[in-house]
Amino acid sequence: MSEQYDRYLEEHEQEHLEALFELLRIPSASALPERQADVRRAAEWVADRLRALGVPEVELLETERNPVVFGHWHVDDHQPTALIYGHYDVQPPDPLELWETPPFEPVLRNGRIYARGASDDKGNLFAALCGVEALVRTRGKPSINLKFFFEGEEEIGSPSLGPVIRANREKLACDFVISADGGMYGPEQPSVTLSTKGLCACQVNVRTAATDLHSGQYGAVIANAVQTLAQLAATFHTPDGKVAVDGFYDKVRELTPEERAEIAAVPFEEREYLNSVGARALWGEPGYSPLERAWARPTLDLNGIWGGFQGEGVKTVTPCEAHLKITCRLVPDQEPEEILRLIEQHVARHAPPWAEVTVERFPGSARPFAIRRDHPALQAARAVLRDLYGKEPLAIRLGGTLPVAEVFQRELGADMVFFAWGMPDSRVHAPNESYRLEEFRRMARAYCRYLTALARA
Amino acid sequence: MSEQYDRYLEEHEQEHLEALFELLRIPSASALPERQADVRRAAEWVADRLRALGVPEVELLETERNPVVFGHWHVDDHQPTALIYGHYDVQPPDPLELWETPPFEPVLRNGRIYARGASDDKGNLFAALCGVEALVRTRGKPSINLKFFFEGEEEIGSPSLGPVIRANREKLACDFVISADGGMYGPEQPSVTLSTKGLCACQVNVRTAATDLHSGQYGAVIANAVQTLAQLAATFHTPDGKVAVDGFYDKVRELTPEERAEIAAVPFEEREYLNSVGARALWGEPGYSPLERAWARPTLDLNGIWGGFQGEGVKTVTPCEAHLKITCRLVPDQEPEEILRLIEQHVARHAPPWAEVTVERFPGSARPFAIRRDHPALQAARAVLRDLYGKEPLAIRLGGTLPVAEVFQRELGADMVFFAWGMPDSRVHAPNESYRLEEFRRMARAYCRYLTALARA
Repeated sequence: MSEQYDRYLEEHEQEHLEALFELLRIPSASALPERQADVRRAAEWVADRLRALGVPEVELLETERNPVVFGHWHVDDHQPTALIYGHYDVQPPDPLELWETPPFEPVLRNGRIYARGASDDKGNLFAALCGVEALVRTRGKPSINLKFFFEGEEEIGSPSLGPVIRANREKLACDFVISADGGMYGPEQPSVTLSTKGLCACQVNVRTAATDLHSGQYGAVIANAVQTLAQLAATFHTPDGKVAVDGFYDKVRELTPEERAEIAAVPFEEREYLNSVGARALWGEPGYSPLERAWARPTLDLNGIWGGFQGEGVKTVTPCEAHLKITCRLVPDQEPEEILRLIEQHVARHAPPWAEVTVERFPGSARPFAIRRDHPALQAARAVLRDLYGKEPLAIRLGGTLPVAEVFQRELGADMVFFAWGMPDSRVHAPNESYRLEEFRRMARAYCRYLTALARA
Repeated sequence: MSEQYDRYLEEHEQEHLEALFELLRIPSASALPERQADVRRAAEWVADRLRALGVPEVELLETERNPVVFGHWHVDDHQPTALIYGHYDVQPPDPLELWETPPFEPVLRNGRIYARGASDDKGNLFAALCGVEALVRTRGKPSINLKFFFEGEEEIGSPSLGPVIRANREKLACDFVISADGGMYGPEQPSVTLSTKGLCACQVNVRTAATDLHSGQYGAVIANAVQTLAQLAATFHTPDGKVAVDGFYDKVRELTPEERAEIAAVPFEEREYLNSVGARALWGEPGYSPLERAWARPTLDLNGIWGGFQGEGVKTVTPCEAHLKITCRLVPDQEPEEILRLIEQHVARHAPPWAEVTVERFPGSARPFAIRRDHPALQAARAVLRDLYGKEPLAIRLGGTLPVAEVFQRELGADMVFFAWGMPDSRVHAPNESYRLEEFRRMARAYCRYLTALARA
């Protein structure tokens, strides 16, 4: 059933695409110091767009680096308040030579918009604004109270996010957050996202002597740091792939039969999956399916290792030091700091007397995030998707970490509903990033429906 | 009892030191391409010295790089033939800023000669020549038939040694080899060397995917190459330090009670030893003393390891490849190529199905070397040392590898007696290399006595 706002969107599509292309032309790569002026220009462009939309309160919340574009449109005390989250900064475009058309000269080709930020996150952010616009132009005002929060540091790890949210708790107060950053499981696979993983990181350092030693003179008598570290590194997992750190799984919420059924309903083609990464076989914790492991089981990952001689050929050295990088992906209710303590205890228990072994904690921990499956805003999203696609959306989870979701939950008491249309083949962060025009249309229409559906009778 | 040759050496000491300093001034660093002319100059200097000594046949045996200085003095068919081995090339002098006086401007200071090559091996080589000279000048000719073989590639791994020996088997034929390269256990600790270890080397490569992967997306599902390699690396040893490769010890000649007593007689100060390398505790195969392990037990050494992220901070990557360098120090009767095969079998047995694991063999294997303890030339050396020092020499072994000893044994059927006066504190290969004047005197006198003692009645 076509609605008024759908017709509005159809009639204004050309105009909307032109505006989106304007935004995409601004090279707002937050990681590049020489692009700081462009990053601010993008913030101002988004703020102007909110004003043009009719948002009564629009301002830039300044941070130590890039401002948050904030907007507030209060329509009715009786209605809930949603905060729409997104980001206007993008990844740097390198390597430039791999782009078929220049990253900051957007083009529409074969039904896709190609540009850096086309999907992540300018395309998604702007599609949400088009949805709001269509609703406002056809109804006169939003169906619920809206806040807008568009940051400019997502691609550099959102260093200002915690401080700016904490400093503006009242201003940002809302019932839930809608993330215009994220995606669907596939082009014809609508999905809702139930959780993201947490993260903590550390480095293990082993020292066995003051300097590297001659393996003929000392190899049989003084401990080898590479060997010591390898043996220590091997203790973190059981041979079949479980994490072997005492207590690691203690706080993990086990999957319910309902959750397992939900994940089992998600299509997973093993051969295709292996081919896509050039791997021989699947690997991981026994007793769980690949998607269960990726989405709902915690991991301890050895990200890097080094020590001793790494050049060409042979050097008969007994290395005196070696190093190991570790990160953990965490699930509810694991606490990053507690996991780091368990790792330290594990290392202390397994460190041999002949070595000095230290654990260096890294900052940047993030807690896992999960939304209650009966959260009304999630249920509403599910219903809108069911309606729009004519089929039941999949319940998916993210193995990656989006600190923002947990920060909003903790600081504002507001759960996040991911409602965006990034696709697995969008090549975000890579050359030739794109966004399907069809998804742009779907997302705008979906926002009209979703915001309407969230209104109380 | 002072001999005529001792007086000769005393009277000509100043002259000999001046000549040695001449040789030390030639920067014959074989590893440095820009020093090739100097390396040849050193060869010619040594050849001239042999001629001046009265050696009837002197020639340069050309190789692909640096010539071997060869000399032959046949005195009597009834007498044995000894081949005196040494090398005229030196290690590069870097780092120059750590030298108290320039490496190629020899000086005598506090009873020591300081220069690159002062000990290794120009000092030792020249002291042997002084001994021969004293004998010849006081007796008219050597007491036995002598051959001289001074190479110019020892410090770059003697690549031409095998070919040049094989090509000159008849010319080089001898009853035994005397090495003027090597040392004593300590300044007042005369010693004879019974064995050196063999060597073989390889690299283990692990691959689990085509590229490094996102640990949130793939960490729970695709194998981590660093983790896989660490677990593989940990299988090479038992937790208490034995090599866990099947068959590794099968061919090892066990120490006899006599040999163990011999090693136990060598002084070893644990605390001092640990302090000298900055280590906390001794380590190694149980059931053997530190010196037994260093000298007479084979080892498998992990020389280096690398894979994944090795920079500052955190990168949440699941590494797709990782690498491990391995060398083994071998004892009689282990065969390098067989040990490499056992390692390959071990890796094949422990490689998991989810990884592509390869073993890359490196060239440059060396067999272990040992001399029979009742070898007449060894017994003669022992007797000369006993006489010179007034005490029984220690029987020691080298944990390091000197391929030359085994090459002479195999190609010429001639065992090597190490008869040189390098000291543990000589800083060979390091800045401020030195040679004690006292050892220079001792070595020259010892050669007079040794060559005399080797003559048949």
